[in-house]
Amino acid sequence: MAGKRNPSTFLIRQKSFLKLSILTYIEKKRYYAYELIEKFKEDYSEFGYKPVSTEIYKALNELVEQGILRRQKRKQSETDQYKEVVVYSFQDWEAAQSYKKQLKEVLINSEKMIKRALKINFK
Amino acid sequence: MAGKRNPSTFLIRQKSFLKLSILTYIEKKRYYAYELIEKFKEDYSEFGYKPVSTEIYKALNELVEQGILRRQKRKQSETDQYKEVVVYSFQDWEAAQSYKKQLKEVLINSEKMIKRALKINFK
Repeated sequence: MAGKRNPSTFLIRQKSFLKLSILTYIEKKRYYAYELIEKFKEDYSEFGYKPVSTEIYKALNELVEQGILRRQKRKQSETDQYKEVVVYSFQDWEAAQSYKKQLKEVLINSEKMIKRALKINFK
Repeated sequence: MAGKRNPSTFLIRQKSFLKLSILTYIEKKRYYAYELIEKFKEDYSEFGYKPVSTEIYKALNELVEQGILRRQKRKQSETDQYKEVVVYSFQDWEAAQSYKKQLKEVLINSEKMIKRALKINFK
């Protein structure tokens, strides 16, 4: 696995991390983009990480362009016919699972590399 | 700690990782830049990570600009008087230890965040 990656590759990239997480969140239910922003805050703000919304939109766009997610417009409510919101769901479940499997290896590799760095610098 | 950092901060940045590692390497001996490149290869290539030399030079420059490291010119050998090489050593040991302490927290935080991501995405 490691050999196939770009030789200068550092830890998992933020974009890949966001795409992976979005796929997992959407396995549970269809999400609006603003709900996804909240999910990231809930799960990762204790580590000082709150992704900016533009980064999340970029990750969503890439997943749609790759044919993994689909974007659907919905009326926000019955009473407000003119307000539309965009909801995300799976377009290609197999491709999503394959992407997640690949990213699992990258995450595990990142964890091992950080452990090595802690050992080397602070043993 | 986490609260003081930029709210969008992701995992430890490559530049910080390189600076931290360089300081640790230089604790053992004075290094030439090309030897540092080899050290990174030895320690991290199994994770698919080989930093490009320009990134290492940028990290070295920053450490010199911050007054943490000093750069000294040396004759490469007694027999070749005209060939000079640059060697790095500590300018401010206290500042180096303080930087390392700060980065230790960032590394530990990154490790915890990756563990959380593995749990959330692959439980």
